[in-house]
Amino acid sequence: MKRILTGDRTTGKLHLGHYAGSLQNRVKLQKEYDTFIILADVQALTTHFERPELINQSIYDVAIDNLSVGLDPDNITMFLQSKISAIAELTVFYSMLVSVNSLRHNPTIKTEAKQYGYDDLSYGFLGYPVSQAADMTFCDADLVPVGEDQLPHIEQGRKIVRRFNSLYGKGKIIVKEPQALISNTPRLIGLDGNFKMGKSLGNAIYLSDTAEDVNEKVKSAITDKDRISIKDKGNPDICTVSKYHQAINHSEYENICEMCRNANIGCTACKDLLSKKINLLLAPFREKHVYYEEHKSKVRDIILEGSKKANRIGNETIENVKKAMNIYME
Amino acid sequence: MKRILTGDRTTGKLHLGHYAGSLQNRVKLQKEYDTFIILADVQALTTHFERPELINQSIYDVAIDNLSVGLDPDNITMFLQSKISAIAELTVFYSMLVSVNSLRHNPTIKTEAKQYGYDDLSYGFLGYPVSQAADMTFCDADLVPVGEDQLPHIEQGRKIVRRFNSLYGKGKIIVKEPQALISNTPRLIGLDGNFKMGKSLGNAIYLSDTAEDVNEKVKSAITDKDRISIKDKGNPDICTVSKYHQAINHSEYENICEMCRNANIGCTACKDLLSKKINLLLAPFREKHVYYEEHKSKVRDIILEGSKKANRIGNETIENVKKAMNIYME
Repeated sequence: MKRILTGDRTTGKLHLGHYAGSLQNRVKLQKEYDTFIILADVQALTTHFERPELINQSIYDVAIDNLSVGLDPDNITMFLQSKISAIAELTVFYSMLVSVNSLRHNPTIKTEAKQYGYDDLSYGFLGYPVSQAADMTFCDADLVPVGEDQLPHIEQGRKIVRRFNSLYGKGKIIVKEPQALISNTPRLIGLDGNFKMGKSLGNAIYLSDTAEDVNEKVKSAITDKDRISIKDKGNPDICTVSKYHQAINHSEYENICEMCRNANIGCTACKDLLSKKINLLLAPFREKHVYYEEHKSKVRDIILEGSKKANRIGNETIENVKKAMNIYME
Repeated sequence: MKRILTGDRTTGKLHLGHYAGSLQNRVKLQKEYDTFIILADVQALTTHFERPELINQSIYDVAIDNLSVGLDPDNITMFLQSKISAIAELTVFYSMLVSVNSLRHNPTIKTEAKQYGYDDLSYGFLGYPVSQAADMTFCDADLVPVGEDQLPHIEQGRKIVRRFNSLYGKGKIIVKEPQALISNTPRLIGLDGNFKMGKSLGNAIYLSDTAEDVNEKVKSAITDKDRISIKDKGNPDICTVSKYHQAINHSEYENICEMCRNANIGCTACKDLLSKKINLLLAPFREKHVYYEEHKSKVRDIILEGSKKANRIGNETIENVKKAMNIYME
């Protein structure tokens, strides 16, 4: 069975955007692949180092969100990044094999720095691809599912891995070069039409939201602003609600667009349809969510158990890496 | 007893320059301080990642050089940097707290990059002060003996430590801010007058050199080029040999300079004096050197024992650090 590495930074609860873009796929993939889920608290620090309480709370939130949507704790390995010293050690080793300039020119770094409004990057933020190369290789991942926007990171990581093997491998593969598994799901935008979704923006539906939360939020979603009366024909191409139908209610999507264009459905009814669909989707997640919230020690055990396994693998990797680098001593 | 952290990068055997500038002092300090000696193999990678064999060989060479000059293995803690995962973990945590620009403007980074001829710095090379902050703090060092040229690194490290404590300490000190213990010993130049000493330059006297090596090398040293005949008066200010007298033969230094200025001593005799002095100094080191070369497993045990102790301390530090950062899970 091939191994997959995937996961989330622990910077807040997960929302529908995460589900549509990644979790949904993750649940499917766990049957075909040995699935490693990283709770990336160290990478959360790259942007949220000033918010330790949020990161702490989010470790459990993200873990529970993953379990609630259907990841099976008996089949996956869920681990906390900061518990895996091999990741930090590989990050340091790999940092010699990549130039500052090539990191500065990484398009994802540039885009994200802009999004966060950074003009004076932290050293850790700049090193994101180095740290990601360590994540991917400490556990011998074969595949890393990513959105297209994350490809430059993965490519830079693969380059580091190739350089490592060619420098220290003497013809052998020491660390495995992973492949990107590209997801083509379009990125879900915020309910207000904003590209970014976030708690502070109030434009995201969280996987743990109640049915009432969902109804309220969907009601507030931005539709075609030029459609003033129910009799006006709508344009789903510029309507946020239609994007959500496309992602969550795919089978009815074309039909709903058609009705909108012909003024056969009003925005309120269209939103009601969406709310119902979302609540139908979230209902079983919510049940599990309540269960895990009430059994947090179980969640902790899942993470600790997964981290133990990840450490076993990571320590083996580090041993091999140090042997290849000629600095192993025992 | 206060703790001192000092040590060497494992990029080659140690020479007289190391002795005069640092080891000599180290031997004295071990009586007053709890002395931690780092064999900095990871930091060796910042410039020598393409030479794993050299780094490997140098781990033993540097350890033996330190033991040979009189560091007492029963009193000091000598450890291998790559064996201390806490250093890598702290490096990663600290990397969030320092900006890329402030590292680029660090004068020591700039000078050393120039010396090595780097125009495209590696990410690891740029992060040297971050990694050094981790060295100093994983073991709660009180003092770090350094040459003046290394002060910007230490200062940047101390700044990181202060930022860490102010962010995560809630008024408490989580990681100890070390003080620099500045050595004012002037840097010993190469026998050829070159600022840098190195094996490839053939201009350094190694602590493990034989008496014949020393005689040969001193004979080749550059003196006052304008002093053609023994009857000419010399200028010790521009003579390499005089610099060595100053460092190694301090009590006779003024007298020798006086004789040189008055043409009362020729260069050959002056060099003979120096060779004898150096060989007198090195003789007991050579004896110990032979012993440790013949008992390498003892050296390994000293390093492994020291690394074990350093890891115990480092793991405690990491536990405290993670608790303060709110990412500790057990």
